[in-house]
Amino acid sequence: MTTLDHLNACPREEFVALVGPTFEHSPWIAAAVAAQRPFTSRDQLHAALCGVVAAADEQRQIALIRAHPDLVGRATLSLESSREQAAAGLIDLDADEIAQFDRYNTAYKARFGFPFVICARRNRKDAMLRAFPERLAHTREEEIAAALEQIFQIAALRLADLLQS
Amino acid sequence: MTTLDHLNACPREEFVALVGPTFEHSPWIAAAVAAQRPFTSRDQLHAALCGVVAAADEQRQIALIRAHPDLVGRATLSLESSREQAAAGLIDLDADEIAQFDRYNTAYKARFGFPFVICARRNRKDAMLRAFPERLAHTREEEIAAALEQIFQIAALRLADLLQS
Repeated sequence: MTTLDHLNACPREEFVALVGPTFEHSPWIAAAVAAQRPFTSRDQLHAALCGVVAAADEQRQIALIRAHPDLVGRATLSLESSREQAAAGLIDLDADEIAQFDRYNTAYKARFGFPFVICARRNRKDAMLRAFPERLAHTREEEIAAALEQIFQIAALRLADLLQS
Repeated sequence: MTTLDHLNACPREEFVALVGPTFEHSPWIAAAVAAQRPFTSRDQLHAALCGVVAAADEQRQIALIRAHPDLVGRATLSLESSREQAAAGLIDLDADEIAQFDRYNTAYKARFGFPFVICARRNRKDAMLRAFPERLAHTREEEIAAALEQIFQIAALRLADLLQS
């Protein structure tokens, strides 16, 4: 935890180290807004970070989406992701549920070429399992928008944790 | 003013009419998220709208930026813009200040091909006049990110007005 005053005053490297994890494995987003300090509110900082993502070309946006782990996957999770997946009830699944997530993850990635991203703190297990078939019916452009939307929500919650007062 | 429950339940056309003005003259953004209802929070709705903007191609993003009026310009303002510019202290300017805004607007548009967008409720007149020369030194890509950041902030404040509880 830190404060906005500290983020505004600290060295650039520390700012990137603290704010970087707001976006999964993508510190370039925090780095891009460091020179815009001082920020007057958490919302302003969030808008700046989302502005960088919005203005990035599609290749970098896809790279950001691809930086996210599978839900219930086998990858080593970032500290933030492991907490979020645990909160969503994704730790104590039975074998059938694990197999269901695995089938959906595979189908989703085969269709869109990037992993299914959903804000785990706003969607518990059942909501995720309902969301998969709906989102599989989308176009690729719609899913890029949906994934970025989820990433913006995840970022807002992570920033709130970082700056909890 | 309305409620999130109403936005979630009303006909699509009404949703677009109510949420559309969150983005200046760009109802396509609200229209794109209507099918994602229900939203569980104002933040989630904001993230969805920003996700649509983020995933739009650069041509549509530039069109969104271009939909904004000049500060202290001669155009007819949207209801939202006129309130915001008034709140920023842009109503009672003297002739020198008007000329200064005019020079900055012209220089900015000549350099980037789109108007200077800044959140008038977070930046009063003096802050705007300081921001112009800084932002004129940016690259075009940096200014697209900066303009989208400001548009996301404006949208957050307009949504807060719409859903004030």
